[in-house]
Amino acid sequence: MAIEIEQPSVGLSKVAVSETHGEDSPYFAGWKAYDEDPYDESSNPSGVIQMGLAENQVSFDLLEEYLEQHSEASSWGKGSPGFRENALFQDYHGLESFRQAMAGFMEQIRGGRAKFDPDRVVLTAGATAANELLTFILANPGDALLVPTPYYPGFDRDLRWRTGAKIVPIHCDISNNFQITTQALEAAYEGAVAMNINVRGVLITNPSNPLGATIQRSVLEEILDFSTRKNIHLVSDEIYSGSTFSSSEFISIAEILEARGYKDSERVHIVYSLSKDLGLPGFRVGTIYSYNDKVVTTARRMSSFTLISSQTQHLLASMLSNKKFTEKYIKENRERLRKRYEMIIQGLRNAGIECLKGNAGLFCWMNLSPLLETPTREGEVALWKSILHEVKLNISPGSSCHCSEPGWFRVCFANMSEETLEVALKRIHNFMEQRKTARR
Amino acid sequence: MAIEIEQPSVGLSKVAVSETHGEDSPYFAGWKAYDEDPYDESSNPSGVIQMGLAENQVSFDLLEEYLEQHSEASSWGKGSPGFRENALFQDYHGLESFRQAMAGFMEQIRGGRAKFDPDRVVLTAGATAANELLTFILANPGDALLVPTPYYPGFDRDLRWRTGAKIVPIHCDISNNFQITTQALEAAYEGAVAMNINVRGVLITNPSNPLGATIQRSVLEEILDFSTRKNIHLVSDEIYSGSTFSSSEFISIAEILEARGYKDSERVHIVYSLSKDLGLPGFRVGTIYSYNDKVVTTARRMSSFTLISSQTQHLLASMLSNKKFTEKYIKENRERLRKRYEMIIQGLRNAGIECLKGNAGLFCWMNLSPLLETPTREGEVALWKSILHEVKLNISPGSSCHCSEPGWFRVCFANMSEETLEVALKRIHNFMEQRKTARR
Repeated sequence: MAIEIEQPSVGLSKVAVSETHGEDSPYFAGWKAYDEDPYDESSNPSGVIQMGLAENQVSFDLLEEYLEQHSEASSWGKGSPGFRENALFQDYHGLESFRQAMAGFMEQIRGGRAKFDPDRVVLTAGATAANELLTFILANPGDALLVPTPYYPGFDRDLRWRTGAKIVPIHCDISNNFQITTQALEAAYEGAVAMNINVRGVLITNPSNPLGATIQRSVLEEILDFSTRKNIHLVSDEIYSGSTFSSSEFISIAEILEARGYKDSERVHIVYSLSKDLGLPGFRVGTIYSYNDKVVTTARRMSSFTLISSQTQHLLASMLSNKKFTEKYIKENRERLRKRYEMIIQGLRNAGIECLKGNAGLFCWMNLSPLLETPTREGEVALWKSILHEVKLNISPGSSCHCSEPGWFRVCFANMSEETLEVALKRIHNFMEQRKTARR
Repeated sequence: MAIEIEQPSVGLSKVAVSETHGEDSPYFAGWKAYDEDPYDESSNPSGVIQMGLAENQVSFDLLEEYLEQHSEASSWGKGSPGFRENALFQDYHGLESFRQAMAGFMEQIRGGRAKFDPDRVVLTAGATAANELLTFILANPGDALLVPTPYYPGFDRDLRWRTGAKIVPIHCDISNNFQITTQALEAAYEGAVAMNINVRGVLITNPSNPLGATIQRSVLEEILDFSTRKNIHLVSDEIYSGSTFSSSEFISIAEILEARGYKDSERVHIVYSLSKDLGLPGFRVGTIYSYNDKVVTTARRMSSFTLISSQTQHLLASMLSNKKFTEKYIKENRERLRKRYEMIIQGLRNAGIECLKGNAGLFCWMNLSPLLETPTREGEVALWKSILHEVKLNISPGSSCHCSEPGWFRVCFANMSEETLEVALKRIHNFMEQRKTARR
């Protein structure tokens, strides 16, 4: 009788078993806590309110109104060749009508102060894919991108997991409102060089997630000069560019390039998406806009792994090429976000909490450092836990954004109704009152 | 005055500058030739007929009929919460309704002879992404997957480009109708070991692209036994499973596992897509079905880079959960493909050309080896060029599929009308007549 030899369990790759996907950070853990006990005004009024999700729900009625008036955007005429042509369309260039509409929309958001060529628009299934794809193109495994802190927690996954690239933080702090400086850039670069790490680029988010603020022109100039000096790439993730409360307060890297006559532009790449400004994360629409021909060609080939549904391109080509709609939407959406922002800032101030002055995005950057038991990462996580489990609010601790100063939190305000936001503010107010009482 | 030092051009990654994307092969070159001079019955009757594209256009009327009768699938009721919920849905688990519908559809295609658990369905934007994603999970850079030849030319890109993995061919030949044998598997494995390459799995396509034939049960058993013996993975790409001309002729690896009580199933992963069987490549719908829990979890996390538009999931959840529609579609589509297949086989036979006996897919595997000037890859490419430029047909040379025997070509028949197919067959007939005359 043959002896059965037990097979060793079949192995997976190093990427598969690594933890660089970052899902175990408090950023995602908070989401799970929300999923298990979600707040609902009537059915679960003491549940967790989700303030850790940068979703834009304030302008859906405008999209719905458009769709009601334009049924051709989401369906096909009877007997028309539209459906079959669309269903078959898998060219990685994307629908020309959609690329044109995207380029036009990006210009509109920037108040016409920068031009975008549809032939440089590369489509990807979301900005997540766009950032990963650019990293594959710019960096070898082991190479690094410099990223200013605090930064979006998902970058740990997007830039590192499958590419094998590293993130080297550019440390920013409250002394100058977390602005990037040439000194901080140089320090990050020198630190990488000292560790024998090859730096391939700088990645900025403008407007910043999690700061909720735009980057000033002079700072952009410095970053571009730095990239040129070091002969490295500059990726500008501008996925919140249409969520700046006023058009004039946002300056795109595209405008700086235009002002410089596109000198050194071959090292600059912009990432954009419709997930935030239009509130369509489910539709998976991202884009890379590169001034570098070789990057455009390569990114397009690589986009085979992450194409946008042609059905969705068809709908959005129609929507975004309607200038009457986009003008109204952009204006109204900005105003609504500003109103929400003022509501939360005022509510927090009434509770005795200050935030960094913001002008963009779906969140504010809240300073709870006076509340920390100890001014450390551990103190911050302890406070985060009590806010999650006692106050029942899921907010994102600064440490999950690699912030170098403890006590800061990102608080989202556009993924809920005004009523829910009021409940959340009331909870925070009560929490702060209890703290005061406890301290007396 | 400062001297301006010319900056070196900013560099890209090794992946970006490598040629492993394979776009320079005749497979893609032929597409470009078609794009420059596409056949049209009335406007360009002497243009190139595209027979290098595995597209299914034979059953669109059934999809269109469904969409006309079910407008709710592609739009949202007035004032319903449908649109906003759908637009926001970016959970990487995918819509539950869609995963259920996919699992059900996969069961139906297999005549109910295998069960699929919706919780093991991982969604990706097309099978291109699914195959790459699995390779990231199973293989480290430098590791290899064994792939039987001839194989789909796109695998060179999908399995290798960004992952850094290698493909080691399992050489199959006409002596046994290109069937995979244990000897060929062992030889490929031993060859890799001799080159110090770590083999992580076998990837088969069943039904085979480009052979247009299903893999026999006994062969599947051998491949699974081989994988178990070597303790490596087995990926079964079954994207043409619904395009087998008769349901009973296709045996899925899922059926083999079911018969074995799921012993050793943790090494098996199935890839599926709606691009071929439903003819929807533009909608980017692929899936990984894994029996390995860790692979399911990891693939789901990784699918963040390649999610399917929720709008498209919504449409297809509706369509595929309608059993009356799917039953009719599957049956009718099989019959139409068989009819097309018989039409082309008969037409080629009348011209004096034989094909491998096929029973599935959107193409046949045509033997033109008697026509080669020299029985080499160069001879094959020379013949391919004259067919492309003189006969004005774009077909795919076997060498682009890494076939080890020269003279074979993949010819697609489902991406055109019957009328166009007749024109193509007539051109081939004339070409063969000219050859005969020339030889006399």
